[in-house]
Amino acid sequence: MVILIMRKKLLIILLILPALVKAENGYDLWLRYKKISNNSLLDQYKKQITSPVVLGSSQTITIIKTELTQAFSGLTGISYKISSALEKSSAFIAGTVSTSTVISSIITKEELGRIDNEGFIIKTRPGKTIITAKTDIGVMYGIFHFLRLMQTQQSLVDLNIISTPKIKVRILNHWDNLNRTVERGYAGFSIWDWHKLPDLIDKRYVDYARANASIGINSTVLTNVNANAVVLTEPYLEKVKALADLFRPYGIKVYLTARFSAPIEIGKLKTADPVNDTVQLWWKQKVKEVYEMIPDFGGFLVKANSEGQPGPQDYKRTHADGANMLADAVAPFNGIIMWRAFVYSSASNDRFKQAYEEFKPLDGKFRKNVLVQVKNGPIDFQPREPFSPLFGAMAQTPLMMEFQLTQEYLGQGTHLVFEAPLFKEVLHADTYSKGKGSTVTKVIDGSLNDFSLNGIAGVSNIGNDINWCGHPFAQANWYALGRLCWDYNLSSEQIADEWIKQTFTNDPLFVQPVKKIMLQSREALVNYMTPLGLTHIMYNGHHYGPMPWGNTLNRPDWNPVYYHKADAAGVGFDRTAKGTNALAQYAIEVQNEFNDINKCPDEYLLWFHHAAWDHKMHSGRTLWDELCYRYNSGVDSVRAFIKQWYSLKKYIDEDRFKQIDQLLNIQLKDAIWWRNACLLYFQTFSNMPIPPQYEKPGRTLEYYQNIRILYAPGN
Amino acid sequence: MVILIMRKKLLIILLILPALVKAENGYDLWLRYKKISNNSLLDQYKKQITSPVVLGSSQTITIIKTELTQAFSGLTGISYKISSALEKSSAFIAGTVSTSTVISSIITKEELGRIDNEGFIIKTRPGKTIITAKTDIGVMYGIFHFLRLMQTQQSLVDLNIISTPKIKVRILNHWDNLNRTVERGYAGFSIWDWHKLPDLIDKRYVDYARANASIGINSTVLTNVNANAVVLTEPYLEKVKALADLFRPYGIKVYLTARFSAPIEIGKLKTADPVNDTVQLWWKQKVKEVYEMIPDFGGFLVKANSEGQPGPQDYKRTHADGANMLADAVAPFNGIIMWRAFVYSSASNDRFKQAYEEFKPLDGKFRKNVLVQVKNGPIDFQPREPFSPLFGAMAQTPLMMEFQLTQEYLGQGTHLVFEAPLFKEVLHADTYSKGKGSTVTKVIDGSLNDFSLNGIAGVSNIGNDINWCGHPFAQANWYALGRLCWDYNLSSEQIADEWIKQTFTNDPLFVQPVKKIMLQSREALVNYMTPLGLTHIMYNGHHYGPMPWGNTLNRPDWNPVYYHKADAAGVGFDRTAKGTNALAQYAIEVQNEFNDINKCPDEYLLWFHHAAWDHKMHSGRTLWDELCYRYNSGVDSVRAFIKQWYSLKKYIDEDRFKQIDQLLNIQLKDAIWWRNACLLYFQTFSNMPIPPQYEKPGRTLEYYQNIRILYAPGN
Repeated sequence: MVILIMRKKLLIILLILPALVKAENGYDLWLRYKKISNNSLLDQYKKQITSPVVLGSSQTITIIKTELTQAFSGLTGISYKISSALEKSSAFIAGTVSTSTVISSIITKEELGRIDNEGFIIKTRPGKTIITAKTDIGVMYGIFHFLRLMQTQQSLVDLNIISTPKIKVRILNHWDNLNRTVERGYAGFSIWDWHKLPDLIDKRYVDYARANASIGINSTVLTNVNANAVVLTEPYLEKVKALADLFRPYGIKVYLTARFSAPIEIGKLKTADPVNDTVQLWWKQKVKEVYEMIPDFGGFLVKANSEGQPGPQDYKRTHADGANMLADAVAPFNGIIMWRAFVYSSASNDRFKQAYEEFKPLDGKFRKNVLVQVKNGPIDFQPREPFSPLFGAMAQTPLMMEFQLTQEYLGQGTHLVFEAPLFKEVLHADTYSKGKGSTVTKVIDGSLNDFSLNGIAGVSNIGNDINWCGHPFAQANWYALGRLCWDYNLSSEQIADEWIKQTFTNDPLFVQPVKKIMLQSREALVNYMTPLGLTHIMYNGHHYGPMPWGNTLNRPDWNPVYYHKADAAGVGFDRTAKGTNALAQYAIEVQNEFNDINKCPDEYLLWFHHAAWDHKMHSGRTLWDELCYRYNSGVDSVRAFIKQWYSLKKYIDEDRFKQIDQLLNIQLKDAIWWRNACLLYFQTFSNMPIPPQYEKPGRTLEYYQNIRILYAPGN
Repeated sequence: MVILIMRKKLLIILLILPALVKAENGYDLWLRYKKISNNSLLDQYKKQITSPVVLGSSQTITIIKTELTQAFSGLTGISYKISSALEKSSAFIAGTVSTSTVISSIITKEELGRIDNEGFIIKTRPGKTIITAKTDIGVMYGIFHFLRLMQTQQSLVDLNIISTPKIKVRILNHWDNLNRTVERGYAGFSIWDWHKLPDLIDKRYVDYARANASIGINSTVLTNVNANAVVLTEPYLEKVKALADLFRPYGIKVYLTARFSAPIEIGKLKTADPVNDTVQLWWKQKVKEVYEMIPDFGGFLVKANSEGQPGPQDYKRTHADGANMLADAVAPFNGIIMWRAFVYSSASNDRFKQAYEEFKPLDGKFRKNVLVQVKNGPIDFQPREPFSPLFGAMAQTPLMMEFQLTQEYLGQGTHLVFEAPLFKEVLHADTYSKGKGSTVTKVIDGSLNDFSLNGIAGVSNIGNDINWCGHPFAQANWYALGRLCWDYNLSSEQIADEWIKQTFTNDPLFVQPVKKIMLQSREALVNYMTPLGLTHIMYNGHHYGPMPWGNTLNRPDWNPVYYHKADAAGVGFDRTAKGTNALAQYAIEVQNEFNDINKCPDEYLLWFHHAAWDHKMHSGRTLWDELCYRYNSGVDSVRAFIKQWYSLKKYIDEDRFKQIDQLLNIQLKDAIWWRNACLLYFQTFSNMPIPPQYEKPGRTLEYYQNIRILYAPGN
């Protein structure tokens, strides 16, 4: 920066560093507010936000002002003060419609009718920019939308944006334990420092709330679904209250997981039977205690009778009995229960079928304030799954979606995998439950079966790593969840575009190639891990790395061999009528899509068929050759990502560049490990050669079988 | 910042933010390199560092240049490039004496003789600043010293500094587990991300090395003393090597903990008996493997036959047998063994006496490359302990000091306690082992008993919290350890002064009062926790909070009642000849200091005497009244700290101000909890009233006895 100082008619020129080029550590996420590099745009922005004013007096309004001060100053390089009183010069005006006639006069009744309490309207006219809503929270969402437009260097001329969220409960599920370990967490310790709460309000809590508010997330479950009743005791509720009080003005409600046996563990009762009067009373009193402390408490998320968790079946009651008891307790306070359908304890011959078998008979038996929370696929967050058949099978029950942001089966903390394409693939899937067009989206948003309560959950990938998510690109999955919850019609490409521009730079020479990497990344991972519908062949327990040979755990459906069923004849799980007939859980149109081994899309082949090694694929290759092709193609993709990334060095800060470069190289190492281990293993069944155009595995199968990853995170 | 721009003879005035006032998060520790606020000093500095040049070509020289570029630019606000070639204009010249006659010509042989390979010489003459040493590492230490002078705004005129470290092994002990939990860690997860090593070199590792180098720490034990043999397997040694390679140019050697039973656990042997040939061979081969990967590997730290750890006594061998076997294995590579004396498994009637009883008979039986590592006191890092009697009892064995930076018994992650006064109190203590003046310092530095090998260890308080140490003031203890290892003659006041100026600001209106808080903080803690020589009355297990009534653990010496022995007659542990006679482990002069209940310093009274409740203290008060006075005085001190801190708001950034303010309030809450719980409990024995001038406990003893801190960190 050149500074000229006039002193006694002498012009003194000083060269000053524009502050040291501050290394970026990722802490600021997509809210970096760096100065706009496009000067003509910057000039236009400056004119448009002259004398900004924000009307209102709530805590939310204070938060908006702080955010705007920081954002406008950062984005323009000029100091801003946000006024509280309208003046003639005010070119930027934010506030609810009731705060000023200047606002209400340019918003029509019809327009207002199109937004709910969280929606917002942005209108720009020459000399006036108006951001308004029915509530201060709505105004806040409008402000963050406006700042996103600035950060991504969009035109702000003639804006006429009317936006309201498509999903009501936009929620993170933290699998965080009270001792600060995080189940399936790959970004350090839990950000919840329970020991110091409620007395220490970590700055992270504020920035967590800001980040969520900026992408529309309005709910958070603080605790692990493998639940601990201690969080429901008074000292811990004081801690929860501190967080709830902090999050409230950001529009974020707090939820907890309820351990079903809490009445025994902390209530000193002899039973947790949901039809027992004393148990019901205990929960009612506990819930009352919670709401006295946290009047807008959201409710409970429950994992019951799943993987060792207690539940109503312990007392020969149903999931509905259990959910309804809790639902009755929270109903007087407008609370909700999110009851997970992730169960597989029944004696079925196919884990795929178990959630359906347990829940389908309960359709229509849940209270109105119960959402049944269903994982996107029938098994468990695999790189690719068909949609869960429950989505087409519960017309009388509002279902909510559970996505997993933390990449348990997607390379965990070290692989770059952008999940928006996975999310959208599931949402786009057609259940045909009420004819063509009965998409999962319409099930989830309630429009198909006429429910007003709806939600999408993302299992959090947040920890206390400086950059929140461990892998810098993992932030994009958190971002994508929020944006898609608000508007599931956004494309993966648009979300990636926004995120890259805000997180790194608007330079198209960086944005375009990085977007391409992101959009290809999920398919690359499918290819080098589980192509063609292979499933759950990860290492036991920690799930890091390949273990298709795994066959030592007590439950068959915990073992990889259960899922791929490779033998001399072929590979894959026959779920047609000749097999477990899991396909029958889908509508006939879906069955038809998958049922014929020759028509089934390659991506799902081994999900539904035990295909011969020489089965002819759509490419014309044999199954074995296609498997070799896909595994190698996955590896090649990662090689290409690395080459591309390396060419982008000059566009961003050194620290993040280096970190991502190193992580991509781990991803390549892992991709090769996956390819070699899996091809060598499956080759013992196919007895076919790896075609000569592909790299040969450098080690023996035995070598890969002897690899032990000890102390993998999140386990 | 006001910027004036001349455009077509029009003067345009722009108000520009001097970059957003960037919130400080503590990550930069004492290496913030903020611009010098004193303008005349700044002008002088700028002249003095004109055309800086650093001579040499090692990795260390590259590191120096990077550090200087960042530091000079930050401190002056002017961009600097560090040259590699001397020019006439070079006013600032750094390099070893052999790099240039410009350097060697102004250093005398006598001066050079006064420094070792790590020492440095700084000379400033008009127009020339010279920083030199025998090695590049020495130059690096000189550079960091020089930068410290600039950061603390010292005059750089006529410097003639010749400095060489007083202690050779200046070492951190990380009690970090391979799963990233940290035993007694209060700052998050371990910074060692073993899972991603060796492929991901976290930026933290670099900044860890910089921070240690800047304060002279030259060694680090990466793993917990409660050791895991897995770190000695090949995949983990690859990870260790990656860190060792990174740390080497910063002058830092890597060490590991050796699990004594490793030959069984990872070597598949049937025994770990140290006199067994196969065991000895196994260790020799393992050590050879380590040194092939890490040629400058430091050696092993061992906790054996202590708190369940395996050791030579499992085979009826002595600590010397165990240590010597390992010492023989590392000796060919110049490695050392640090063998901990923290043992208390013998059948003695007093835990105080046990380390002495086990180790005294072994004096003279250890190999030359063994250091016996002794905790500062005879018990376990209490707020105040008399020095360990071992320091006066092992004339034929080099002893190294073990201090604990992590505040296991000092309020853990939430109390402000500056430990330098504690460290210095121990170092100053006189063992009288060779007559008056036989201080612990002289034992430790080897001068008393003529050993050249010497060391001081600090149990690390570092974790992956953004600010490294959890509590912002905990950084000062890390800093103090390094500075005292280099020069134990530095006063606590000087260390605090340096640290505050570098960490916060040079403004004396801030520095003076904060220094006062720091210097009083340890005594305040002693008063509100364990005044007058009370010991180990913390909560079982996690050690957070008071539990003087604790009496439920199997081993008597794990129970608080063992340590205070309160009864109707009085309180305290009689260690005179009438009691356990632990005093006999000291020289007669020390015995005389403590032996007479009427002369024993108040601070140590209950360490050595069971004193009557109405025992007359030096203040004239009864013991009971003095106890009430001390507990209340501790609380009052914290109240004063809070008041003082609050008055300093304007001097520093908001985030750290707030965080410390909240932590001080937790400290006050805890201090009151300690006072009330302890006075109410001891009152059940004394049956005396709390004098009316003091606050009455607001709750009953039962209330305090029912407090349960679940999921306390570090446990």
